[in-house]
Amino acid sequence: MASLPNGAAAAGGPSGAPVVDKEVDFANYFCTYAYLYHQKEMLCDRVRMDAYHSAVFRNAHHFRDKVVLDVGTGSGILAIWSAQAGARKVYAVEATNMAEHARELARANGVTDIVEVIQGTVEDIELPEKVDVIISEWMGYFLLRESMFDSVICARDRWLKPDGVMYPSHARMWLAPIRTGLGDKKMEDLDVAMDDWGQFVEETQVYYGVNMNVLSKAYRAEHEKFYLKSSIWNNLHPNQVIGQAAVIKEMDCLTATVDEIREIRAQVMLPISLDGARLAALAGWFDVHFRGSKQNPANEEVFLLTPSLKVSKGDSVNVSFSMVRSKENHRLMDMEFTYELHEFSGKQHPAITTKMYLE
Amino acid sequence: MASLPNGAAAAGGPSGAPVVDKEVDFANYFCTYAYLYHQKEMLCDRVRMDAYHSAVFRNAHHFRDKVVLDVGTGSGILAIWSAQAGARKVYAVEATNMAEHARELARANGVTDIVEVIQGTVEDIELPEKVDVIISEWMGYFLLRESMFDSVICARDRWLKPDGVMYPSHARMWLAPIRTGLGDKKMEDLDVAMDDWGQFVEETQVYYGVNMNVLSKAYRAEHEKFYLKSSIWNNLHPNQVIGQAAVIKEMDCLTATVDEIREIRAQVMLPISLDGARLAALAGWFDVHFRGSKQNPANEEVFLLTPSLKVSKGDSVNVSFSMVRSKENHRLMDMEFTYELHEFSGKQHPAITTKMYLE
Repeated sequence: MASLPNGAAAAGGPSGAPVVDKEVDFANYFCTYAYLYHQKEMLCDRVRMDAYHSAVFRNAHHFRDKVVLDVGTGSGILAIWSAQAGARKVYAVEATNMAEHARELARANGVTDIVEVIQGTVEDIELPEKVDVIISEWMGYFLLRESMFDSVICARDRWLKPDGVMYPSHARMWLAPIRTGLGDKKMEDLDVAMDDWGQFVEETQVYYGVNMNVLSKAYRAEHEKFYLKSSIWNNLHPNQVIGQAAVIKEMDCLTATVDEIREIRAQVMLPISLDGARLAALAGWFDVHFRGSKQNPANEEVFLLTPSLKVSKGDSVNVSFSMVRSKENHRLMDMEFTYELHEFSGKQHPAITTKMYLE
Repeated sequence: MASLPNGAAAAGGPSGAPVVDKEVDFANYFCTYAYLYHQKEMLCDRVRMDAYHSAVFRNAHHFRDKVVLDVGTGSGILAIWSAQAGARKVYAVEATNMAEHARELARANGVTDIVEVIQGTVEDIELPEKVDVIISEWMGYFLLRESMFDSVICARDRWLKPDGVMYPSHARMWLAPIRTGLGDKKMEDLDVAMDDWGQFVEETQVYYGVNMNVLSKAYRAEHEKFYLKSSIWNNLHPNQVIGQAAVIKEMDCLTATVDEIREIRAQVMLPISLDGARLAALAGWFDVHFRGSKQNPANEEVFLLTPSLKVSKGDSVNVSFSMVRSKENHRLMDMEFTYELHEFSGKQHPAITTKMYLE
């Protein structure tokens, strides 16, 4: 869909960044957040909820008598916690109509004199004062999908006092070598899809006199992207990890810039710690910190490596990684992994490059 | 999401019609058609394929040595058939990048000298000549969902010769009273969803100190819309129909206007032909004609009636129907059914009105 005129594509902005059509962005992105169903899904994520809950209440001194800005408040839970932790004033900004529900919720929880819900985007709204704390649950798959941190940066640059604090304060992205049967499963799915296509081509020729075979290659490419080149959200078992994990990106939320996250490039060496394993994928995840207290509110993304590699203890995998915003939709990410096996014996295998999509 | 600034909402155009933001429309609507997977799904619909195939080849005299315009050609199948049926020239218009595949397909099927694929919307493109035939597979759920017929009308008014023909030429929308267990099933699903919500509210209070109960009513409304007020695509068994079907809209594709389909209102009396049945839903479907040869390339939509009504042979149901384009997205439809049971005995029950969404 590279040339689909969907607004986010084609034209470049002053800094070479794609121009974002706000209306398209609303249609594509914000609208899901207007459903209570979706809000509930997020609120049922215990790991995430617990991380924020203890961050707020264990650091209540950061909130007591302070002014707080909650970026993308959704149903308003972080804003209410901030008020409960003693904030003098909480500005809770929400772009969708969920703002109305956040207002009701603040009322029902007796914090209506503290929590002020403002419907709008943080890029557009005005506040009557600077804030001491910015809190936000902005993390998408593999941290940066959704590109919502851009809005947090904007909020910080516009409204955070010089000595203000960010919740979360730091974030890291990780990669680790793993073994998994997922690749075989997906390959089987792809085979089934292609068998089905083959039958369709045959039938279309026989019944309708049109030869569709010329599209087989494109059909396969479309399905390879879907089955093999799209990251898979997954809960990993610790013993799937067959070597050392590495940080590919560290970020201080107080100083990070949009330029810094628009394109991420890293090269890491991942030592293998298990004998005779098959390196079938890389796992990616993130963790965030709240001023010292480490939290990991995220699940793993699996990036399949096809072909997989047979590896042994003592080998290392050299991984070059890049993640760039998709040209068609700035909230999605195009990734590229180059992986290269260095055997313990000194033998070095040729590098393999694979694209991967976080959609 | 009534006030979401998603482009299609709010502002009115010169005729009072909502202004369509083309970029948003592309993001929301056209992009699915850019996938071969989706094209294949449509091409695997035998009823639809057979209807068009026989329409073209049984009426080959309409195509022989004629100029044809295919509106929204997709993979190009109708354009190729038109060429195979003897057309002198076929302009195949496609907005998405599927146009490239249509070109390949035309080449592979040896009709590249006849089929000219033009990438663009039929509202924007220019043709070098007027056409004798417009062919298009524009029908959405319950005929009008997707509002693609607007584009066919535009194509007709811009490019069809005064004595040109339309494929299909006529379309009708039908309603019939049916019995079904779907409503009970959906009601159970709703109960499960609400039980789950109840537990969530309790846990959020206990674990996180926030009372979410104030949102229960809104959560129920959101889910009622999803489970009970959204039409359900379904294959009906003939003996589910418990009374007479009625045409609620007839349309001549040669003369129909956008104004005529923007809002549809009808009132029909549906006599019941089965004793002791429960009127649990209305079924809606459409059929289209190709210059005399009747075809029914569509499946049924089920519109649940909650509450359902106990009915008997000889009773009649008076149904008032309206279908208006959704303010938020002109391709979706908001419907309202008012149903009123007239017993054979003369007893008349109070009218019940229910909204229904075709999304």
